[in-house]
Amino acid sequence: MKVAKFGGTSVASAEQIKKVAAIVAEDKERKIIVVSAPGKRSSDDTKVTDLLIGLGEAFLNKGEAEEELQAVVSRYDDIAKGLGLGQDIIATIEADLRERLEFDRNKPESFMDSIKASGEDNNAKLIASYFQSIGLQATYLNPKDAGLLVSDEPGNAQVLPEAFENLAKLRDTKEIIVFPGFFGYSKEGTLVTFPRGGSDITGSIVAAGTNADLYENFTDVDSVFAANPNVVENPVKIKRMTYREMRELSYAGFSVFHDEALIPAFRNSIPVCVKNTNNPSSSGTMIIAEREYFMNPVIGIAADEGFATIYVRKYLMNREVGFGRKLLQILEDECLSYEHMPSGIDDTSVILRQNQLTPEIEERIVTRIREELAVDDVYVEKDFAMVMIVGEGMHNTLGVSARATAALARAKVNIEMINQGSSEVSLVLGIHSEDADGAVRELYQEFFGSAGDTVQ
Amino acid sequence: MKVAKFGGTSVASAEQIKKVAAIVAEDKERKIIVVSAPGKRSSDDTKVTDLLIGLGEAFLNKGEAEEELQAVVSRYDDIAKGLGLGQDIIATIEADLRERLEFDRNKPESFMDSIKASGEDNNAKLIASYFQSIGLQATYLNPKDAGLLVSDEPGNAQVLPEAFENLAKLRDTKEIIVFPGFFGYSKEGTLVTFPRGGSDITGSIVAAGTNADLYENFTDVDSVFAANPNVVENPVKIKRMTYREMRELSYAGFSVFHDEALIPAFRNSIPVCVKNTNNPSSSGTMIIAEREYFMNPVIGIAADEGFATIYVRKYLMNREVGFGRKLLQILEDECLSYEHMPSGIDDTSVILRQNQLTPEIEERIVTRIREELAVDDVYVEKDFAMVMIVGEGMHNTLGVSARATAALARAKVNIEMINQGSSEVSLVLGIHSEDADGAVRELYQEFFGSAGDTVQ
Repeated sequence: MKVAKFGGTSVASAEQIKKVAAIVAEDKERKIIVVSAPGKRSSDDTKVTDLLIGLGEAFLNKGEAEEELQAVVSRYDDIAKGLGLGQDIIATIEADLRERLEFDRNKPESFMDSIKASGEDNNAKLIASYFQSIGLQATYLNPKDAGLLVSDEPGNAQVLPEAFENLAKLRDTKEIIVFPGFFGYSKEGTLVTFPRGGSDITGSIVAAGTNADLYENFTDVDSVFAANPNVVENPVKIKRMTYREMRELSYAGFSVFHDEALIPAFRNSIPVCVKNTNNPSSSGTMIIAEREYFMNPVIGIAADEGFATIYVRKYLMNREVGFGRKLLQILEDECLSYEHMPSGIDDTSVILRQNQLTPEIEERIVTRIREELAVDDVYVEKDFAMVMIVGEGMHNTLGVSARATAALARAKVNIEMINQGSSEVSLVLGIHSEDADGAVRELYQEFFGSAGDTVQ
Repeated sequence: MKVAKFGGTSVASAEQIKKVAAIVAEDKERKIIVVSAPGKRSSDDTKVTDLLIGLGEAFLNKGEAEEELQAVVSRYDDIAKGLGLGQDIIATIEADLRERLEFDRNKPESFMDSIKASGEDNNAKLIASYFQSIGLQATYLNPKDAGLLVSDEPGNAQVLPEAFENLAKLRDTKEIIVFPGFFGYSKEGTLVTFPRGGSDITGSIVAAGTNADLYENFTDVDSVFAANPNVVENPVKIKRMTYREMRELSYAGFSVFHDEALIPAFRNSIPVCVKNTNNPSSSGTMIIAEREYFMNPVIGIAADEGFATIYVRKYLMNREVGFGRKLLQILEDECLSYEHMPSGIDDTSVILRQNQLTPEIEERIVTRIREELAVDDVYVEKDFAMVMIVGEGMHNTLGVSARATAALARAKVNIEMINQGSSEVSLVLGIHSEDADGAVRELYQEFFGSAGDTVQ
């Protein structure tokens, strides 16, 4: 059996939901359908989730929010009408929303969680209702009834181990289950939402719990591309990639997935397929535990900006047992996470996301490093980009770094940092932010310039 | 004025000491001469320092060591005869040695320090005596009288700040001072030796204390070479290099200097010149604070072997504030120092000198990393070499890393690690040890293939 998750744009309108129904009807293995809240129908549209946040906040502030409530109901109403459904489902949704507004406002985080999650929850009810109306044997299932147990951290739920055991029984479902994404319930019965990418997380958990043969993640692109289509014209589509490749690429701005979302599927070796609701015949991108690689050692190139470097120099640093540890302790005391720590003999740099560095924090860590570590020099530089070249075949292929660095030299890009040697599937190049797009284009040309439409 | 230090082979025999005298006589600026103990006269000879260690250990064990004492005296006697000196100086040396054997044997470390240091001390007396015999205005100066104060750590003396003030008055010396290398005195008046490279350290301290215009380090090579002459045939000579370049290269096996030795000169911006006692007309290698660079961004290529990698993988590692710090803490608890820590997204490696890893230590750290950090994978790999490409011009020159990585690809050398980005003057490439010589030769060919006899 397959678990199929449909993202916000895939369930944004009646027209889109009809496509979903066709996709579900076409393959009997698609037994569990995880749905998002209705997303944007066009680029200037508002997501239902954002309407709900407006509703919740207005109600918390003013004690009433009738206008905001009607805006939400109206979105569902449009969809229901487009799907030819009666007013029953809209009455159900409106009653549900009014009931949620009764929730204890002295717990504003949990109140907001409940309001936000109604987007997915009511959409699941509506979609189940539509499936039934066209003769599909389908039923809505609430995550509480399914036993999707999570930790009680509003907005940051972590799945509990018992959840997987509870979900296992859904594997043998006769009916098609329509399951709302984005939230679970604490052991005390409180609704709690997942962090960013919540519906992807739900799909991944349900796929893992039911030991699905495939987790299909339907979105609005045909596949994962070998480079950002906004930077590289018409990049090749990736047909198969590994979890590791996906993870390394999503780190550097490949936004098809939020990377935590994959963990449950990854840990249970469930294959994941990224597909397009609007073009389901396209084979999409399979994400699997292992793959063979053939011609091209590289599968994708990504760049992410907004990195800063803390440069530290101290004569005979490398003789000083504990220096690196003390340096990282200073960062940890400020709750800073770092990305890379390249080192010379007498110097080391720490590369981190610069949005973590307020002027105060920067001042404090520079002062502490200077005084507590008695360094010869310490300073911060900003606006670096990290370019990631990713591919399972890289480690065993001679000359990948030579080709990459030569490409950057051709593009007149000075390399500020190279980090290779831990991950076997990636090479990280630190450059100035303004060089990022040019670097990605030249690297793409180097590794994919002669490629056909699809890579591996 | 100049401080000139002569190493063991430069003062190993009468013939060599005559060369030293000629060098000193030739330049009136050479006012302070720091000397080592007599070194090897040929490759199968024994250094006086090693004879002294034998003497001291025999005496500690047996309470007498007449034979060993005579072996030492005999070496000085050979030299004195060859220099046409009378027996007075030999009588002085023998009496000095017998007096040292009277030292409290309940302090064996200080006892050994005193015996070992006699090699330099007595050679300084002998050389001063010879200088006088040929009409040079010269005098032996004991480090105690000079105020060369050090910490009381036998075999590991650290210079005290007062030493520099005390030494300053030597700057205006009228006579040539012959100063023994390798040791100083604690504030309590105990003789204490420096760590490895001790005479270089003395020379550097005296040069710094007297604010010398130049610190000349006479040894048995014409200059520092751009690569190891045992690996690359007839490598180019380096004419000028910076402290940083020297330091990065000496890290990776360039053994002209022990790198700590340079610290006092470095901190006081004293230029250092490496010269050859056997060929003093050769201009040698100048080591200075800054240099201009011209054609070649690279000044030298070195490789060092014996590195191990601890590879650690954990999904979402980079989200975990404190992971790297905890990992380094585990190494620190075992007193391990590390060299590099390249990182991917979900993995990091720690590269360290593998002679630190006993099977027990390796077992303990792998177990602790696995259990305390809850990693997905951890293992140790050995027998890596680090190749360093060093040059002040590297940072601002496009394509150095491209040329380096392309050269390794030509040599069919797989690159296991690249570390660039902290030091502006070096690029570190991790490869398998068996590839090291081939890598250095191909890199040399790439960066120096068309060079003439001398680089910059």
